[in-house]
Order: sequence, then C-alpha cells, then structure tokens
Amino acid sequence: MYQVAVDAMGGDFAPQAVVHGVIEALNAWKDLHVFLVGVPEQIRPHLPRKMPSNLSLVPASQIIGMNDPPIEALRTKTDSSIRRAFELLRQGQVQAVVSAGNSGAVLAHALFLLGRLSGVSRPAIATVLPTIKHHAVLIDSGANVDCKPQHLVQFATMGAVFSEQVLGFKHPRVGLLSIGEEGGKGNTLVKRTHKLLSEGPLNYVGNIEGRDIYKGEVEVIVCDGFVGNVCLKLSEGLAEALMSMLAQEVLSQRLAKLGFMLAQRALRKFKQRIDWRERGGAPLLGIEGVVIISHGRSDARAIKNALGTAKEFIKLDLVNKLKEALQDT
Amino acid sequence: MYQVAVDAMGGDFAPQAVVHGVIEALNAWKDLHVFLVGVPEQIRPHLPRKMPSNLSLVPASQIIGMNDPPIEALRTKTDSSIRRAFELLRQGQVQAVVSAGNSGAVLAHALFLLGRLSGVSRPAIATVLPTIKHHAVLIDSGANVDCKPQHLVQFATMGAVFSEQVLGFKHPRVGLLSIGEEGGKGNTLVKRTHKLLSEGPLNYVGNIEGRDIYKGEVEVIVCDGFVGNVCLKLSEGLAEALMSMLAQEVLSQRLAKLGFMLAQRALRKFKQRIDWRERGGAPLLGIEGVVIISHGRSDARAIKNALGTAKEFIKLDLVNKLKEALQDT
Repeated sequence: MYQVAVDAMGGDFAPQAVVHGVIEALNAWKDLHVFLVGVPEQIRPHLPRKMPSNLSLVPASQIIGMNDPPIEALRTKTDSSIRRAFELLRQGQVQAVVSAGNSGAVLAHALFLLGRLSGVSRPAIATVLPTIKHHAVLIDSGANVDCKPQHLVQFATMGAVFSEQVLGFKHPRVGLLSIGEEGGKGNTLVKRTHKLLSEGPLNYVGNIEGRDIYKGEVEVIVCDGFVGNVCLKLSEGLAEALMSMLAQEVLSQRLAKLGFMLAQRALRKFKQRIDWRERGGAPLLGIEGVVIISHGRSDARAIKNALGTAKEFIKLDLVNKLKEALQDT
Repeated sequence: MYQVAVDAMGGDFAPQAVVHGVIEALNAWKDLHVFLVGVPEQIRPHLPRKMPSNLSLVPASQIIGMNDPPIEALRTKTDSSIRRAFELLRQGQVQAVVSAGNSGAVLAHALFLLGRLSGVSRPAIATVLPTIKHHAVLIDSGANVDCKPQHLVQFATMGAVFSEQVLGFKHPRVGLLSIGEEGGKGNTLVKRTHKLLSEGPLNYVGNIEGRDIYKGEVEVIVCDGFVGNVCLKLSEGLAEALMSMLAQEVLSQRLAKLGFMLAQRALRKFKQRIDWRERGGAPLLGIEGVVIISHGRSDARAIKNALGTAKEFIKLDLVNKLKEALQDT
C-alpha cells in the first residue's frame, strides 16, 4: 500500500482540482491511500457522497498563499496544510507529499521538517524534458536561485541517479549548461563547476549550450535554479508563440487547415510535456522523503499524475538510491 | 557615403562567405564603401576579376581563432584582421566594424581601441527577437557573463534607446527577466536590479518570466549575458527540435504534407530570425563606434545584411543617441 499526503489547498484551482484529481487517482489505483490535508469546510463540497475507503481527511486550519514569504509562513502558520502534510511524512504515516502550492514554502517545510540527505547542501527540483531522442532531466528547475559550484555538482549527482533509476539510462551523460562548448567558457559559477565535474566520478561530457537541450545528446542537464526556471518557462512560452505564429501563417495563406491542426497538435503535445503535466509534478531531490511539487496551474489530471509519480518513486525506493549514490561521492 | 571595415577572416566560412557577402552588399548599395581586412592571399581567390571601385583591401597578416583567449590575442596578435579593422575605425577612416569572428576578441578590441561611452561600465550585445506582436530587443545577449545590478541598469537604458531609435517604439516598456513576476522573486542580481530600475527614469514594468519573452508585452528584455545567450540558443534549438518532432508526427500519420511544409516554413522563418540573420548581426552597444557582431556561422547573406544594419546605425547616429540618453541618467 502506498500512503501519500496531498496538500488540498495548494494551486490556482484548489481545493476543487486537487480533490477531483485525488478521487481519480483513488479510482485508478487500489494500492493507494491518500491523506487529504486542508480546511475541511472547503474540501467537503468537492467530495463524492460516498467517501472512498482509501481516503482520509486531515484537518488544517491555515493556507499558505502563493505570495507568502516561505520562511515567515513556516514560522507563523503552524497549522497550514503544507505543514500538516509534512508532519505526516515525518511521523511515517505517509511515504510522500504532493503539493501544487507555494513551492518556496514547500521547500522550506521539507528542509525544516524532513531535513536534507547527507551530502546534500541544497535540494533541487528535477524536471523531465522531451528531446528529439529520448527524455532528459533538467536539474535544478527552480529551487535554488543563487548557487555555488559544489551545489551544481550535487545536482549533477542527484540528476544522474534520477536518470538511472527513473528513466532507465545506464551511465547517463551529464552536461553543464553554458554558453560555449569549451570548458573555459561560461560565467564564474559554470567555469568552477566544470573543473569539479571534470575531476569527479560522473559520466560528465562537458559544457552544453542552450541549443543542445532538446537534442537528446545528454541525459542530465545541470544548471542553477534561476537559469533552469527561465529555460523551462521560455520553452513553454516559445511553443505557445510558435502556435500563434503558425496560425497567422495559415490565415495569411488560406491553405491546408488539416496540416495546421496537425502542427498545432504536435506543439500542444510538446507544451503539455514540458509544463509538468505528463508527470504531474517534479520531485524535490535531496530531501529525506518523496516530495512532488506540482505546477501551480495543476488541474485534476495533473494531480492524479503527480500521485502516480509519487507511487513510482516510493516503489523505486528513490530516496535510498540517492543516499547510496551520495555516499559514494 | 558609408564606410565600413569588414573582418574578412572571421566566422566559420571565412573568408569566402564574407567576401561574397561584401560583394553582394556593394552591388546592392552604391553609397557603401567597404574596407575588407585580412590576409590578402586568402581573400583574393574569392574576389571577382574586376575589383569594385568601392572596395579597398587592407592587409593583416594574423587571424584570431574562435578559441583564442581574447585578452591574449589582443596582446600578442598585433597584426590581426580584427585589430586592423578597429584601427581603421579609431582613425576615422570607417564609421563601423563588422566581424563574424571570435566575439570575445571583438569585444576586447572594441574596448581597448575605441573605449566605452561615458556612463557605460560594460558594453552589451542587443539582439532583436520576433514576438507574436512586434519585435523586442534582448540585452545582454552574451557579452557579459558575470554582472552587477548597475550593469543591468545600463543595459536597460541602452536597450530602450535602441528600441526607440532602431525599432521605432516610443517609451518602450522594459522588463527584467526573472523567475516570478513579483519584485521579490529572482536571484540576488535580479532583486537588486529590480530595486534600481523601479527607482529609475525608464518605462520599467517589472519582472517578466521566460514564458513572456515571445508574448510581445515588453519591448526591451534585460538580463545578464549568460542568461541571455542561453535563452537565444535555447530558442534556436527548440525551433529545430520542434521541426523534427513535427516531422515525426507527419510520418506517423501519412497525412497533409502541404500542412507540414507550411508549419516547417513558419518554424524555419522563426529560427532564421533569431539566429541573427535577419539583421545579419547584433550591435555591441556602449562602445565609441558602430560595431556589429555577426554569427560565427554567417553565410554571404548574413554578412550582406550585417552591412545593411551597419549603414542603418550610422545613418541613425545611434552612438550619439546613446550618449545623450546615458548623460540624462
């Protein structure tokens, strides 16, 4: 049985989208038990009449908003849904937490209530990206905006374990995102990280450039969380912009509606893949527990998929695999 | 008459592509005089039999390679084509320099031989991007990998002048590239820059996210050169990857070849626009002179367009417009 705590109050469409996603997941997987954490009066209207047996409601009276400063929320909102969810994980009642709420607050609570794995200074978000060949993982996707070289080395190690265990690549190739392929190119952070990775045990192939991200020639792309987040959102926005440019092209031509729809479908598919829906959320790696951060705009399907992802990581024993790999470095 | 020095030895396809581009430009514009700088024996085989009257050859015996460390090249290669080109500009024989060579070396020579405009600590590369509404300028696109807040403020000022003078926007809106729209979000550099820009005289609209770059809701996008370069190359690579994903989609469907070609054309058009060919090169702003940095992979058409861009900036008196704007800040 997989036990997962879900923050019912997190995300733009909470609690409705979260509750619906949880119900879908419970219908799909009989080996799942969800602890839905949040304000009972707000959750109940969205529950089915007959409460599923594998669903528990855990009351929490406070909500952490998207713009609440994370550390302050941690200090003052001691009965928040995020906090209660992490307490369940700390007490061993669940094996994972899923939240589409304030990701800075999720990070702060994870650090404070669960702690970091030994060898990790900064937990990082790993996002799975489609490429023209296969899937790659981009780490860090937004947890750490100001990084030191040793942080990026830890991201690389965690990304490689993730790629091996979750995506099934043996000896995944690790690339460092920079602005030139030669090791001497990049900013100070990247140049120093390049040196450390070159001397380390990973299958490090050197710097890669922005244009290489979607080529599929590395399985792990390492960068700081500022750059990673800009890259993800740029990709999402560009796919959207291209759809709209395509539409203009078609309108100016009065040709081939069918082809346009085809192209649009491919672009939409791509966009969905990168906006975290395929997996429903991205794991926060480096924490003593499985933590899935879902997109703020998550709908029911995204929440359901996040629960599937949580199950997968519990089954793979991902946290212990990360611990082992970090010990070896 | 517009006088421009062109580095014949710079770029992956030099000198052939450069010489051909220059000849095309001279045929197109009778008010242009080009000083082609480089190794005479390597240039001559590509020249037409009848030498155009508005073309001068300026010998230089050395070539700065793409991987030569810029400062070392500046110190040791005193008869390089890049150096000779900048000397012509310093002596007033030409009004602009165009080079598709080592951009770090171009920057170093520009700084050493021409100097910075008063009020500019770091010259920056401005790239014109297509958006779904109109064109926007991304500054810095790669000249400065490690920046301080005041540098980004100067980039914003220069970007705004460029947007007004070259792209024709009145009071262009300036956005700071970050990972959240609220001013409190971003890395240390961005948070401090946000404060300075908020207090400054520009039409600053606040942080924008990666997904907003192509929306066309700001005319000037400000970021450090590392992030800017990653964004540009990512956009180029993503357009390529989407073309290849579209191709897979079409092959798996056996439908609508026409529509596919249409989509492909739109994507290719987009890709060409962002890889600097439309304008043939991006200006290095903040220098005492017009300097156009062309893409390393420039073909003859790109070089020709770079010469057109150089002419345009000379005509607009862009350098003096920048000086005036910088004085006011």
